[in-house]
Amino acid sequence: MENTAGRRVKNRVIQMDSVVMVMHERPELRAPVLIEGLPGVGNVGKLAAEHLVEQVKAVKFADIYSKHFPPQVLLDDDGVIRLVNNEMHYYRGEGERPDIIILTGDYQGMTPDGQYELSHHAVQTCKDLGVSRIYTLGGYGVGKMIEKPRVLGAVTDISLCEEMGKHGVVFSKGEPGSGIVGASGLMLGLGKMEGIEAVCLMGETSGYFVDPKGAEAVLKVLMSLLNLELDLTALTDKAEQIDLIASKLKEADTAEAPKREDLGYIG
Amino acid sequence: MENTAGRRVKNRVIQMDSVVMVMHERPELRAPVLIEGLPGVGNVGKLAAEHLVEQVKAVKFADIYSKHFPPQVLLDDDGVIRLVNNEMHYYRGEGERPDIIILTGDYQGMTPDGQYELSHHAVQTCKDLGVSRIYTLGGYGVGKMIEKPRVLGAVTDISLCEEMGKHGVVFSKGEPGSGIVGASGLMLGLGKMEGIEAVCLMGETSGYFVDPKGAEAVLKVLMSLLNLELDLTALTDKAEQIDLIASKLKEADTAEAPKREDLGYIG
Amino acid sequence: MENTAGRRVKNRVIQMDSVVMVMHERPELRAPVLIEGLPGVGNVGKLAAEHLVEQVKAVKFADIYSKHFPPQVLLDDDGVIRLVNNEMHYYRGEGERPDIIILTGDYQGMTPDGQYELSHHAVQTCKDLGVSRIYTLGGYGVGKMIEKPRVLGAVTDISLCEEMGKHGVVFSKGEPGSGIVGASGLMLGLGKMEGIEAVCLMGETSGYFVDPKGAEAVLKVLMSLLNLELDLTALTDKAEQIDLIASKLKEADTAEAPKREDLGYIG
Amino acid sequence: MENTAGRRVKNRVIQMDSVVMVMHERPELRAPVLIEGLPGVGNVGKLAAEHLVEQVKAVKFADIYSKHFPPQVLLDDDGVIRLVNNEMHYYRGEGERPDIIILTGDYQGMTPDGQYELSHHAVQTCKDLGVSRIYTLGGYGVGKMIEKPRVLGAVTDISLCEEMGKHGVVFSKGEPGSGIVGASGLMLGLGKMEGIEAVCLMGETSGYFVDPKGAEAVLKVLMSLLNLELDLTALTDKAEQIDLIASKLKEADTAEAPKREDLGYIG
Repeated sequence: MENTAGRRVKNRVIQMDSVVMVMHERPELRAPVLIEGLPGVGNVGKLAAEHLVEQVKAVKFADIYSKHFPPQVLLDDDGVIRLVNNEMHYYRGEGERPDIIILTGDYQGMTPDGQYELSHHAVQTCKDLGVSRIYTLGGYGVGKMIEKPRVLGAVTDISLCEEMGKHGVVFSKGEPGSGIVGASGLMLGLGKMEGIEAVCLMGETSGYFVDPKGAEAVLKVLMSLLNLELDLTALTDKAEQIDLIASKLKEADTAEAPKREDLGYIG
Repeated sequence: MENTAGRRVKNRVIQMDSVVMVMHERPELRAPVLIEGLPGVGNVGKLAAEHLVEQVKAVKFADIYSKHFPPQVLLDDDGVIRLVNNEMHYYRGEGERPDIIILTGDYQGMTPDGQYELSHHAVQTCKDLGVSRIYTLGGYGVGKMIEKPRVLGAVTDISLCEEMGKHGVVFSKGEPGSGIVGASGLMLGLGKMEGIEAVCLMGETSGYFVDPKGAEAVLKVLMSLLNLELDLTALTDKAEQIDLIASKLKEADTAEAPKREDLGYIG
Repeated sequence: MENTAGRRVKNRVIQMDSVVMVMHERPELRAPVLIEGLPGVGNVGKLAAEHLVEQVKAVKFADIYSKHFPPQVLLDDDGVIRLVNNEMHYYRGEGERPDIIILTGDYQGMTPDGQYELSHHAVQTCKDLGVSRIYTLGGYGVGKMIEKPRVLGAVTDISLCEEMGKHGVVFSKGEPGSGIVGASGLMLGLGKMEGIEAVCLMGETSGYFVDPKGAEAVLKVLMSLLNLELDLTALTDKAEQIDLIASKLKEADTAEAPKREDLGYIG
Repeated sequence: MENTAGRRVKNRVIQMDSVVMVMHERPELRAPVLIEGLPGVGNVGKLAAEHLVEQVKAVKFADIYSKHFPPQVLLDDDGVIRLVNNEMHYYRGEGERPDIIILTGDYQGMTPDGQYELSHHAVQTCKDLGVSRIYTLGGYGVGKMIEKPRVLGAVTDISLCEEMGKHGVVFSKGEPGSGIVGASGLMLGLGKMEGIEAVCLMGETSGYFVDPKGAEAVLKVLMSLLNLELDLTALTDKAEQIDLIASKLKEADTAEAPKREDLGYIG
């Protein structure tokens, strides 16, 4: 069955880019603020960012695909697929509200290399779109249930601490002790290299559950910072459900503590 | 023995491409349909694609080699080697039957990165050869023996659901819940990005064995879709053998259940 | 201590090539034969190749370095380091003896990707130097002590089988069943793609020890193939020592069988 | 919410370089000596290099970032982040003291590939800055507490042994037996390829603790080699504390021996 007699044609296919961004529209925005919320500890950042997209009816303008995500498609209820991705949405602020870009998605990069590539891409896109400040959202895992989660901060420049403090952000020496790992950290580090000021907002969370309460805390800070009015009812409801489940599990004494090391990660 | 006195010559060898395709012949086809069947759950896709190649006497026209495959050669009975690969075959349809390209092979890419590279290459080749539609074949592992396997579907566009339904494809909300991983998923996702419509056909399978029954189910759908007449006797025979082995194992009660996570993968 | 006032200078350093070959001399050879012997099962290939280098007093003409080797330097007795590498030596044949290039070294590539890169580099260098045939040497692990190791063969073209058979090479259907993994396999596979005929010679070995007896068997075939006269005393002596150790271990019944999977690898 | 009607804009972002060096200043130095001390066994190299930076009040002139480091930012006491990095500092020698560049940092490359990339970058930068000799500092793990740590040496050329011996460096046949792994080894190997002479100084250490005593021993050799006067009090104090802890642990008999294999690594 071997067919080696024929002439050999080498077809050269250009290798897939490490990160592929498809922009459906290129929004003209006024020095927008970028808010990143991707999966991580307690999914705090992702929950907050997705709630924000819904509440301000932000418009998706870009899909980001990458070899650094799992090789996977997801199905909707009709059986229509979409490749796993990250997405960018924009919201045009009115009055004193700034324009906002929101970056959220299914996954973070699966390898250190992939993390750098994706955050580099996001920061370069920030430059391209004239982003004036980056907020990254994450969870800070403390390994126990939290009644009133604080929102811890990290910044690219000390001049930002005072402003953040006014909006309820806590700066606590030695917290988090191991620094910030993943997109929420890298976008600060790479943003700083590019001269974009950036702040990481970390909602305290047990780290045991998906945590809407941590997301709520983070969003309250954002509302204050950005003059936004958001309806947080949906998150509050979910938080109450989680609390209920948690207390039942406590009764049953079946809640196995996850390994400490898992809690250090901040998405 | 060190010889450092001589002049130093640096010979620059161009790095090996990530994916190397050798076309023995470049077939001119009329808007062909591409059918992908690579190793995966129950080897359903690979069994079906290889049976199709045999039945329609498809002609191999391309070998695909890659650094993302294992560094391995296989031996035939005479001791002649061939490098592990994927292959493309074509079949010229007559009458109402479309022209078909069949992609099958020894392995899928061994890493997420490799999976993306290989599927990207395959989809770009589809564009190059004027492919009008992609069918990817896979198994859907359900973790128990199946008497009458359904063929589940996933599509790049909702408009395809009705057509597929007429040929017996089932769309079932929440199945498969974790999406589709590997080439069968990625070729849909990347095909969609390139504007090529694509369908994944997943034959139900226990996931415990190589499963000719799942392959048979998938091929019956393809026969209906593509106006093909195929002799499925060989698959039916193999399926009966497997059933026999399975029932003996059940008697002996030695059939250890594989881990649930292994069943989620769809080739 | 931060110094950000100064101007920023980006120094662009070209990335290290995947494989770096330093040729100390470019030998002009008459259609040489290349013999590869790198670490693998029983170290059969490496032992044989290094013995050959010594016996024919081959001259080193190239060092091969790579990111795919471990990040390691080795020390000689004086504390002088050398970066781990592969090496090429040449021997000018006289009379009916062909010119020979011998490729040996400390390591094979540590990843599948690295294996492909290094074998690709070696085969491209073969083309560059006019190599007429490649012999790769390896061990075939059989999981038990072998009195008289056979030398199994694998070839790029069936026309080579007869010639090999005359020199004692055995072609045995289904052996090795899992094909050939690593450089000894890839150089056949990639050589075939480039139109260079190639043969793999696999000396049977238990796979439990470094095995000079397997190396001896392989070298006897090479002596016959290439009209070489080699003194194998040193290998025979080592083989006797190993046999002695093995029989003592057997007595002590402490010889734990390695896992079967380890034996399938052929260097 | 899908917005596919709009035109598609592909924004091409250039991929992040494997290693990014930001020079704040380009120092003009007279054939400087480079001293490398990065994390490794007992953190001997890093401790010594950082102590040297402090003592000679060396000036930071470059930050090195890389995809081969963890995707992590660290926080100072105010909550200001910095991306994990390596750094270069310079010191202008007076009188008989040479100019010195000191390379230290948070991490070594996380993969073999990354190790090669980073050491390649460092050696190319050495060439660029006219470095006349490289000293790499590391620990040599011996698996037991050491009263008077020796400083073992490894060199790129035998001509360096005599000079090193005069300054107390020990060359001991077969130590370290497994060679030198990581930056301290690679910078010798790659430096040799570029014609830069290089020496690795390895302070003996148990490998169980961060070891200021090993660092002290290494620095004493450097003081002799480079005509430096350094105050080692801080290291001596830390060493005494570690000794105290070690002896208490010994009493408590809770000091579990680390695996032998961990001790072979030399940073």
